[in-house]
Amino acid sequence: MSSHHIVREKQEPALIIANGESCSSELLGQLLEWSPFVVVLDSAIHRVMSLGIKVDVLLGDFDRDIDLEEIEQSQYPIEIVHTPDQDKTDLEKAFDFLINRGFPAANVVWATGRRADHSITNMTNIIRYKSKLSIVMIDDYSVIYPLLPLPNTFEKWYAKGSKISLIPIGNAMGICSKNLLYQLDNEQLILGYRSGNSNEAAEDGIVSISYLSGDLLLMECHD
Amino acid sequence: MSSHHIVREKQEPALIIANGESCSSELLGQLLEWSPFVVVLDSAIHRVMSLGIKVDVLLGDFDRDIDLEEIEQSQYPIEIVHTPDQDKTDLEKAFDFLINRGFPAANVVWATGRRADHSITNMTNIIRYKSKLSIVMIDDYSVIYPLLPLPNTFEKWYAKGSKISLIPIGNAMGICSKNLLYQLDNEQLILGYRSGNSNEAAEDGIVSISYLSGDLLLMECHD
Repeated sequence: MSSHHIVREKQEPALIIANGESCSSELLGQLLEWSPFVVVLDSAIHRVMSLGIKVDVLLGDFDRDIDLEEIEQSQYPIEIVHTPDQDKTDLEKAFDFLINRGFPAANVVWATGRRADHSITNMTNIIRYKSKLSIVMIDDYSVIYPLLPLPNTFEKWYAKGSKISLIPIGNAMGICSKNLLYQLDNEQLILGYRSGNSNEAAEDGIVSISYLSGDLLLMECHD
Repeated sequence: MSSHHIVREKQEPALIIANGESCSSELLGQLLEWSPFVVVLDSAIHRVMSLGIKVDVLLGDFDRDIDLEEIEQSQYPIEIVHTPDQDKTDLEKAFDFLINRGFPAANVVWATGRRADHSITNMTNIIRYKSKLSIVMIDDYSVIYPLLPLPNTFEKWYAKGSKISLIPIGNAMGICSKNLLYQLDNEQLILGYRSGNSNEAAEDGIVSISYLSGDLLLMECHD
């Protein structure tokens, strides 16, 4: 699907397809429309190719059986990036790659579900990239944004009752909200001890969230 | 299956079935053998009953459509515990319930997968109960243990190459390991910044892990 698009000066976010639980084909199809530049992580390539998706970049340490020649042939032209660094996850390497190529934003799918260690590491490592790349992590039940601290403020329109969870990674200090059912007024959240799980938009309208320091994820989730 | 067992002075762990992704029926069947006292969280009861499982306790705020009378009839005898407290998750309420009833341990399934906010909250909130209840959270890809700090030391036999991830919740300080491929010698891990993801047993034998302070999860995961 990538080849049907022309990337216009990298205004569009790239799409990273990681190696966790697959999402619905509807969600993936929608994301491919929005994000025509596709980066696939390591052995996820087999599942991606079986869906008939055109891939721009395959990135990984390729320490498992993977036939790169066959992939190069069937996906030509494809860029294959070998990243043996053991100190970073494949997802972090993909963020580094996109930042280097000048992408301002990335949508990430298949990064959650399956192995709990990968899932929690992927969800939490995105905070380290929050000021360099605008990241949105998406699965069938969740949309996850790392929020930037003040002077930035997160503002978005929500329908009344929309579920909004605030998840600190470690600590988040000085959190203030507008238009949430359970308002936060200069409060601190601590992962594992005090979370802002299962809040919701109080009324139709703009919800705004700011915080002073630490790290904070916003999650829009539904059952 | 519960009725086939006699709980002997609560030596056996209870089984909590939460409301996330279902696990395989093989895993669930095995856990029901080990943990015959079954606590189900809120609307997960419908999925549990459709599997023909006998439930001992149903716990929740029951704010969605749920026919308690019908459940009481088909599951008789069952204890139904209404827990409207909005400050705690259903899983935390189940831990409180089991601690009150004198259970020393709980296995937890269906607590991961699906909604990312519930998944990360469930995985991380267990640290708060680590000294009161011996908790193991299990899904098809993962077994998660909260580790106790020194003077406790985690020790377990693993085959060489077994995947072991150390995930700090917030910070974990003074971590020491024996028989891991990437040894830790009085090191600090910080969630989102420095994780001990994708380590493994160096040789067949006992792996031991200790830490001084903070919060640390051990995850055994496989693809």
